[in-house]
Amino acid sequence: MEPGSTPRTTVKRLPEKAVRDADAVSTILAAGLVAHVAVVEDDQPFVIPVAYAPYGDEILLHGSSASRAFRLLAAGAPTCVTITLLDGLVLARSAFESSMNYRSVIILGNARELTGDEKLAAAEALTEHLLPGRWAEIRPPSAQEMKATSIVSMPLAECSVKISAGGPDDVPEDLLDPVYSRVWAGVVPILEYFGSAEPDDMSGDTPEPPYLTEWSRR
Amino acid sequence: MEPGSTPRTTVKRLPEKAVRDADAVSTILAAGLVAHVAVVEDDQPFVIPVAYAPYGDEILLHGSSASRAFRLLAAGAPTCVTITLLDGLVLARSAFESSMNYRSVIILGNARELTGDEKLAAAEALTEHLLPGRWAEIRPPSAQEMKATSIVSMPLAECSVKISAGGPDDVPEDLLDPVYSRVWAGVVPILEYFGSAEPDDMSGDTPEPPYLTEWSRR
Repeated sequence: MEPGSTPRTTVKRLPEKAVRDADAVSTILAAGLVAHVAVVEDDQPFVIPVAYAPYGDEILLHGSSASRAFRLLAAGAPTCVTITLLDGLVLARSAFESSMNYRSVIILGNARELTGDEKLAAAEALTEHLLPGRWAEIRPPSAQEMKATSIVSMPLAECSVKISAGGPDDVPEDLLDPVYSRVWAGVVPILEYFGSAEPDDMSGDTPEPPYLTEWSRR
Repeated sequence: MEPGSTPRTTVKRLPEKAVRDADAVSTILAAGLVAHVAVVEDDQPFVIPVAYAPYGDEILLHGSSASRAFRLLAAGAPTCVTITLLDGLVLARSAFESSMNYRSVIILGNARELTGDEKLAAAEALTEHLLPGRWAEIRPPSAQEMKATSIVSMPLAECSVKISAGGPDDVPEDLLDPVYSRVWAGVVPILEYFGSAEPDDMSGDTPEPPYLTEWSRR
């Protein structure tokens, strides 16, 4: 069995879309902004969107110390962290073969809560993932702000990657059919970008920091 | 208690971001393309990205009949379906007040599996949500394709909405600080759009369907 793969994360459906490659994991984690994180309480799963950052062989998550989900995460409850990048719509000549191009990472495991210097370094990594270049300019968190924030870390040890890419894969009958063979088929890319920065009332005369123009993730 | 809200979905953290408004739910569901869906097996949650469609007072999800997650969903296992739209990065003068603008819907409940005519109508709704205008042109699913596809429906009865919008909300001390008051602050919008359609090998001479140019979701 390859690194990062366990029986729980082996991709059973569409195994041709499964990729076990640490580079693929780090590329997807570097490009995403939000993870969907699950915790279970009384057999009921809850999925919340969470800002994250890749951090060596781990992933960092942060939220409010008072949130139910982060109390469960900090206590080491089993969790699943999923990051999905949508790349395009795939238009085939049949409904069944139409699909989406995407890249996703699914991480299983248990988180541990960070404290002290490790937590402060993680806060910096979380800011720098979302807002690269920003940490050096802004006010670092106070002790009270750090207390109000929970930061947990999860190993990437048990994870799976799925990548769906390329054009439609129509069945031969549709490619020969007099009607359906004439239907336009292909891919419509989905692109995400950062728009023009909107300064707040006090920033009208402040020059835009150079890193703002460098942020373009895909 | 307002419609759609139960003790399980009452937003406890940042309740000022909670919105209980059926219009907000339908606007978010109309704009999203992918849901993150959780199921639990042996106390371990799994979160998978799933194509969905809003459908009256319900949400439709579809996947492979053979997938573990869809077998659990079809059996009525407790689930959570989360749709998140990222709208922007919020750059405050402190790390703690920096955040993201987003809109999210979290739906709790149990799905039911659709069959027969109801399932075929749902397949059309799923295609039309992702690819509006497409169903009339493409080959509808065969009986075998329908059998290979699981479509489940979840009521929107138990759901919560969170919307975070607007600019940074800096603490007064930072706005008066000689250094931090001079840091640029504001919002960087995150925009998603559909790029130029890429025809497959057989579609080079086929005119692009007019609905392709109409697809722009935000």
